[in-house]
Amino acid sequence: MIRGVLPTELATRAGSFALRRSLEADLAVIVELLAADQLGATRDSADDLTPYATAWRAIDADPAQQLLVATDDAGTVVATMQLTLIPGLARRGALRMQIEAVRVHEAHRSSGLGAAMMRWAVDDSRRRGCALVQLTSDKSRTDAHRFYQRLGFSPSHEGFKLLL
Amino acid sequence: MIRGVLPTELATRAGSFALRRSLEADLAVIVELLAADQLGATRDSADDLTPYATAWRAIDADPAQQLLVATDDAGTVVATMQLTLIPGLARRGALRMQIEAVRVHEAHRSSGLGAAMMRWAVDDSRRRGCALVQLTSDKSRTDAHRFYQRLGFSPSHEGFKLLL
Repeated sequence: MIRGVLPTELATRAGSFALRRSLEADLAVIVELLAADQLGATRDSADDLTPYATAWRAIDADPAQQLLVATDDAGTVVATMQLTLIPGLARRGALRMQIEAVRVHEAHRSSGLGAAMMRWAVDDSRRRGCALVQLTSDKSRTDAHRFYQRLGFSPSHEGFKLLL
Repeated sequence: MIRGVLPTELATRAGSFALRRSLEADLAVIVELLAADQLGATRDSADDLTPYATAWRAIDADPAQQLLVATDDAGTVVATMQLTLIPGLARRGALRMQIEAVRVHEAHRSSGLGAAMMRWAVDDSRRRGCALVQLTSDKSRTDAHRFYQRLGFSPSHEGFKLLL
């Protein structure tokens, strides 16, 4: 499998950030980003990292997955996203890239960091030969929807979830 | 990775069908199911199977993927779906199952076959320890949306796509 060109630098109007694959040592900060989110607050907590560490190792061992972090000048993790490469038959055997768990620290929103990360993800998808990039976003996240549409994503689908 | 209990029998009010992993020999019929679909008609065709065969081998080699077919009494493939197991950090390191490319031959719609396949997929997701099953469906497929809601899926998310 082709690996993206990482680490890389993301230039934004608030300065530059580094984008790289996550390390297990980043786990607490990534989980804090998930838990700081309005919808994640009831679902996630960094108090006990055990289940997250198991999941992190499964993600890291799977060549279809990229769990990425962006760091600031001080090397602090300030954002994360997960990319999953999914092979399929539809669209003449097209590869698709799925983006999950995009989170940017509150202090770095509106800096252009999120957009720079998404643009990198789209470029990476193109490099890997994907025909499609996809993601779902909770219907309550209307700001995020505008953000994805500005990046060229079309809200063409209903996203269905079933909790087990 | 745990493998589901396949092949299995799906009982429906129109008789019973077998559900099994796809073989490369099923490819032409699966692609015909994709191409017979209203939205797939412009995107897929069984005239040249070469790109589909490459994709089929990538799917079959990936332990996170299950490309399944349902067959009738005569052994003819009449339906297909693809299940993808995605590890993640959110929801305390939850596994999620994603369902893509659900297609049932026109002659077998309203037989309960699609619902039986979806129920099997949900059971399989539970067996594998998933916290969530997810799928997206084009906003024009309103019949499919009612079908997924009857099965307990909630249209809680916007599904964004970017064609490359």
